[in-house]
Amino acid sequence: MSRIWVINPNTTRAMTSTIEACARAVAGQGTEITGVTSEFGPPSIESHYDEAMSVPGLLDAIRRGEDQGVDGYVIACFGDPGLDAARELARGPVIGIAEAAMHTASHLGRGFSVVTTLARTMGRAADLAEHYGMHRFCRGIHACEIAVLDLDTDPDARKIITEACREALETDDSDAIVLGCAGMADMCAAISADLGVPVIDGVAAATLTVQSLITLGLQTSTRGEFAAPPEKQYTQRSMC
Amino acid sequence: MSRIWVINPNTTRAMTSTIEACARAVAGQGTEITGVTSEFGPPSIESHYDEAMSVPGLLDAIRRGEDQGVDGYVIACFGDPGLDAARELARGPVIGIAEAAMHTASHLGRGFSVVTTLARTMGRAADLAEHYGMHRFCRGIHACEIAVLDLDTDPDARKIITEACREALETDDSDAIVLGCAGMADMCAAISADLGVPVIDGVAAATLTVQSLITLGLQTSTRGEFAAPPEKQYTQRSMC
Amino acid sequence: MSRIWVINPNTTRAMTSTIEACARAVAGQGTEITGVTSEFGPPSIESHYDEAMSVPGLLDAIRRGEDQGVDGYVIACFGDPGLDAARELARGPVIGIAEAAMHTASHLGRGFSVVTTLARTMGRAADLAEHYGMHRFCRGIHACEIAVLDLDTDPDARKIITEACREALETDDSDAIVLGCAGMADMCAAISADLGVPVIDGVAAATLTVQSLITLGLQTSTRGEFAAPPEKQYTQRSMC
Amino acid sequence: MSRIWVINPNTTRAMTSTIEACARAVAGQGTEITGVTSEFGPPSIESHYDEAMSVPGLLDAIRRGEDQGVDGYVIACFGDPGLDAARELARGPVIGIAEAAMHTASHLGRGFSVVTTLARTMGRAADLAEHYGMHRFCRGIHACEIAVLDLDTDPDARKIITEACREALETDDSDAIVLGCAGMADMCAAISADLGVPVIDGVAAATLTVQSLITLGLQTSTRGEFAAPPEKQYTQRSMC
Amino acid sequence: MSRIWVINPNTTRAMTSTIEACARAVAGQGTEITGVTSEFGPPSIESHYDEAMSVPGLLDAIRRGEDQGVDGYVIACFGDPGLDAARELARGPVIGIAEAAMHTASHLGRGFSVVTTLARTMGRAADLAEHYGMHRFCRGIHACEIAVLDLDTDPDARKIITEACREALETDDSDAIVLGCAGMADMCAAISADLGVPVIDGVAAATLTVQSLITLGLQTSTRGEFAAPPEKQYTQRSMC
Amino acid sequence: MSRIWVINPNTTRAMTSTIEACARAVAGQGTEITGVTSEFGPPSIESHYDEAMSVPGLLDAIRRGEDQGVDGYVIACFGDPGLDAARELARGPVIGIAEAAMHTASHLGRGFSVVTTLARTMGRAADLAEHYGMHRFCRGIHACEIAVLDLDTDPDARKIITEACREALETDDSDAIVLGCAGMADMCAAISADLGVPVIDGVAAATLTVQSLITLGLQTSTRGEFAAPPEKQYTQRSMC
Repeated sequence: MSRIWVINPNTTRAMTSTIEACARAVAGQGTEITGVTSEFGPPSIESHYDEAMSVPGLLDAIRRGEDQGVDGYVIACFGDPGLDAARELARGPVIGIAEAAMHTASHLGRGFSVVTTLARTMGRAADLAEHYGMHRFCRGIHACEIAVLDLDTDPDARKIITEACREALETDDSDAIVLGCAGMADMCAAISADLGVPVIDGVAAATLTVQSLITLGLQTSTRGEFAAPPEKQYTQRSMC
Repeated sequence: MSRIWVINPNTTRAMTSTIEACARAVAGQGTEITGVTSEFGPPSIESHYDEAMSVPGLLDAIRRGEDQGVDGYVIACFGDPGLDAARELARGPVIGIAEAAMHTASHLGRGFSVVTTLARTMGRAADLAEHYGMHRFCRGIHACEIAVLDLDTDPDARKIITEACREALETDDSDAIVLGCAGMADMCAAISADLGVPVIDGVAAATLTVQSLITLGLQTSTRGEFAAPPEKQYTQRSMC
Repeated sequence: MSRIWVINPNTTRAMTSTIEACARAVAGQGTEITGVTSEFGPPSIESHYDEAMSVPGLLDAIRRGEDQGVDGYVIACFGDPGLDAARELARGPVIGIAEAAMHTASHLGRGFSVVTTLARTMGRAADLAEHYGMHRFCRGIHACEIAVLDLDTDPDARKIITEACREALETDDSDAIVLGCAGMADMCAAISADLGVPVIDGVAAATLTVQSLITLGLQTSTRGEFAAPPEKQYTQRSMC
Repeated sequence: MSRIWVINPNTTRAMTSTIEACARAVAGQGTEITGVTSEFGPPSIESHYDEAMSVPGLLDAIRRGEDQGVDGYVIACFGDPGLDAARELARGPVIGIAEAAMHTASHLGRGFSVVTTLARTMGRAADLAEHYGMHRFCRGIHACEIAVLDLDTDPDARKIITEACREALETDDSDAIVLGCAGMADMCAAISADLGVPVIDGVAAATLTVQSLITLGLQTSTRGEFAAPPEKQYTQRSMC
Repeated sequence: MSRIWVINPNTTRAMTSTIEACARAVAGQGTEITGVTSEFGPPSIESHYDEAMSVPGLLDAIRRGEDQGVDGYVIACFGDPGLDAARELARGPVIGIAEAAMHTASHLGRGFSVVTTLARTMGRAADLAEHYGMHRFCRGIHACEIAVLDLDTDPDARKIITEACREALETDDSDAIVLGCAGMADMCAAISADLGVPVIDGVAAATLTVQSLITLGLQTSTRGEFAAPPEKQYTQRSMC
Repeated sequence: MSRIWVINPNTTRAMTSTIEACARAVAGQGTEITGVTSEFGPPSIESHYDEAMSVPGLLDAIRRGEDQGVDGYVIACFGDPGLDAARELARGPVIGIAEAAMHTASHLGRGFSVVTTLARTMGRAADLAEHYGMHRFCRGIHACEIAVLDLDTDPDARKIITEACREALETDDSDAIVLGCAGMADMCAAISADLGVPVIDGVAAATLTVQSLITLGLQTSTRGEFAAPPEKQYTQRSMC
């Protein structure tokens, strides 16, 4: 039995529940999935500032996971916050959901479109696409302008997102859709059914990528850049 | 239960056995793996000519698989021959072992080195790395100059390959090794143990990539380029 | 006197006649042009599958040409099928019509547009543009949605293609048009006259590229990747 | 009079003094330079983990600067930590020292080499070079394997770094050197004198870049991605 | 006191006055700015031909500057004519206004749009963006179709350019505007005020870049390509 | 009968003779070749300054050619000076020898090496390779450090260049050699015979490229950037 933590790097527990369910729905019999909510940081991640401030909470969760011998991790936010640092801390593989979703989409056609929440996060998605070598497949990044925490509560959310996906397919002449937020994970099947193209949720994709790496016995290389970071005495924020 | 065919696009059955075993060793409980040998074409693939001539046999196998309702396919040659055409024929996902190995390696560090058989195949590997967006991770491609069918019989093969991997790590300052031939699949664990870095065999990696795509319910998009090819009356080669 | 074979890699002889005429119209006095029809394979090439299945017939033609001491070859299909393999087999130069057309267009302005037959072939054209380094000049690839074998029979074909070219020039703000199918070769002059921009037919362009290479005494390098492929015993397709 | 804060995102005050002095040495008469030490986080930044953990302290300093009406900021660590987030928080320009140094070097020749501290930080420098469009000028990244806090105390530091620079010039055939750590700022002139090529210290370069932007009346665009982040209630780390 | 020559490489003295004023408006107290008009060549630069023919006049001005010990130079035409050659001649730094404007814009957001004069100059701007590594930031190049010498006399010029900038921001979804002609330098502040985004004039930007390089003690590297050119006896154009 | 001018953009007539002979040796029966020496400018081109100063003389020659109805032009210097401007002036095609040589080499293998004269010209060759899309084929640029005008007089020139080519093939693992100076044109066959790989002389290659374009009836597009430049009153250099 291998254990994977699917870490929600924001502090909203309801979102962790959705994420955990989506991960469990695809995990194999030998895999135990645990949804983990970041203990401090922003309630949702919608700016570079939010993302930067979510990283210490995420890394704190990774440290706890390492203490408990967790085998691999999913970072369940489409900005893949803290991925490089997490790889230094964890023995086992760590995969971001943007990373997994984009790689997965590249196997299914020549080009995909990303549909995300707020337009201001599009730049980060573009950076990640390039960083992973996936910009040659990423034909466009589109925003539906629904805030992360409204994905659950806005009754029209799925409809708006579906229409944004439909437009993206036309505009970009793409083959598949990547959903650009962990909070959209549970809409994946319905949107795919509506549009008749592959729609990729990064939470499920990343869960299986981590599971596969564990099965293959593969861990982040410690030969150079991703070796454990040198131990240091950190100054804590004073609280007063 | 889902069924995956791992197709060896050359006609050497012994190699299929090795490949099948490596695929089975990592497949999940709900996955049935069948190794399939191409019924016609070259006994090994070591030139653009060999590769081109292997494709009809591979596509013939895909057609047979489709008749039998196979859920997904691995193309078990590091040149990923016929991948685009196979995706047009198959309903389910089709993954090449170079594709899977390179994507997998990109999750484990900043750069990988490929170690392949004959130097004349290095160009094809470079083409594929670029095609998949993986050239930014692929720091070098190296040949051990052992012919494909000698991998099994040359008693020094594993030692020579291990040394080539060691040199590649140094020369390229890379984090991981990608083995550049399906015939090296069974050496993967030993080389990794010797070198202390992740070593990726594409056969195992591709098997899990296909399995994951099936679990995710994802198939090649038929929206455009990869829709089923138009039916045509082909002229057969006359045999006399 | 040097001899160039212009090989039509589909089996439609009428198309070979058109191609041969276009090649002859530009060849120099010391060059003998022979149009050669592939003896087996698809009647037209409109999918990755068609293209893959056309390659053995093409390579068979190259082998026959080599037996007869042919000096150079044009592959007269815009997908440039089997080009790398053909270069391994042939002593003299081998040029694809997409290759020649794109290179030629790059000498005439900052950017060109490709106008091809079916939209599903656009991906292949994009791959080739990148492979030849011509994507920086290729500003767009457009389809007229006329099937290859209808180019000859559809009375509106030339008009439709001309309009597609006109739109492409506007959309892409490009300087020249590349015709994306050997079957359009005989429309080249008329479309150029209509539009007032350079329009490039790859058949004529490739014929002169091969002729030039022969005049220069240049052949495909055999130093590495494109040396003659190792001889092997191939398994033939059983016919029953 | 305009005010620029040069923020050292690690907690080592001695390093801030060096940095502040280097910034002051180049600032114009109308510019007031203040060196600011991060109030919490790592004592030096030598891993992705260190860098991630330095960002909240850096952003806290930016917030304080905004409260005081500071006109622009330098992030004085060669990993340019938190740059995107800082740009969301600050009204005035924010420049990283890697950013400034690389841009500056690109004005002085065709290629530069970076010489940094520990090899494990080379990956981050490469990421930044690409992000800024400077990888076409960056011919190599080299490590001298002196830890950041030893730059001051190791009596051989300057000599070792000078030799690393000399080797880098030869290996990369480059025109200039970029020093890859704020802690090397005070060695810049001496190394340049020794080697006879331009040597760029990012602290001085970034100070003048910020000063120039202020003079030009230019601020980070708030049209999209870098608008002020949405206000949110953050969960604080519990301290017990 | 350092001396910077801002060279207008066309022969229109009125344009030099505007340029000189814009440069002086931003220069520091220790910097003396001199506007210099090219003594021979075209009255404005609006083609590759104009640009090529402006270079000898520009280089002649640089030679005179060197005789007088000038510390640095701005080439005040958005095609940055003769930049590489000027760097060979000058001891101090030489910066083109396209170079400076694009680098500056890259510090202020993810993407900028260029708005230039005639459409036929857009290709040159694209070449420069790539050459400087700035094409990843340059989201579009747009023409207002006002000839260079009409910028001053056309009463609607500023309005037309402002509208072109507004459209460019929308079309490209960019963060900032780069003005693509030295003749637009004096419109910069007004357009920025109208549009609410950073608008960059290369004359001012380049002046401060040169000033900063002088302050930093940095000169073009003479290690290789940009060493002083070998002395030769040139044949002069016969005048009869 | 079509007429091609092969313009030597330096003023050394002996070099023009060599160039003219190499062009004539490959031209077809219907082509008349004229070697033209630039009437003013540098005696050889070995710096950015030389190159810039050679352009007016080259363009003057093009103007004379246009007056005489010349059908196409070769610019016979490996820096391809003034190519864009020449295309504006000439009705017929204009090809640079670096352009033609690199394109030609790309048809013969996966990668070529350039061997040029002085190291200081390597940067220009790299710029051109990128500009033409040929940098993916250009594996290295090497200098033999023989000055252009010594190519004829140094008795060891051919031997030194041959050795530089041999080393380049090894270092770059390339398939072919591009000779990086018009002054090497007459050594091409001998070096190829010595090394057993294709060696490309740009003078011959460009001559046939121009001849082919003329045969194809293709001219530089005048749709946009390369239309005739607007007429202007140029200020002449005063001679006193």
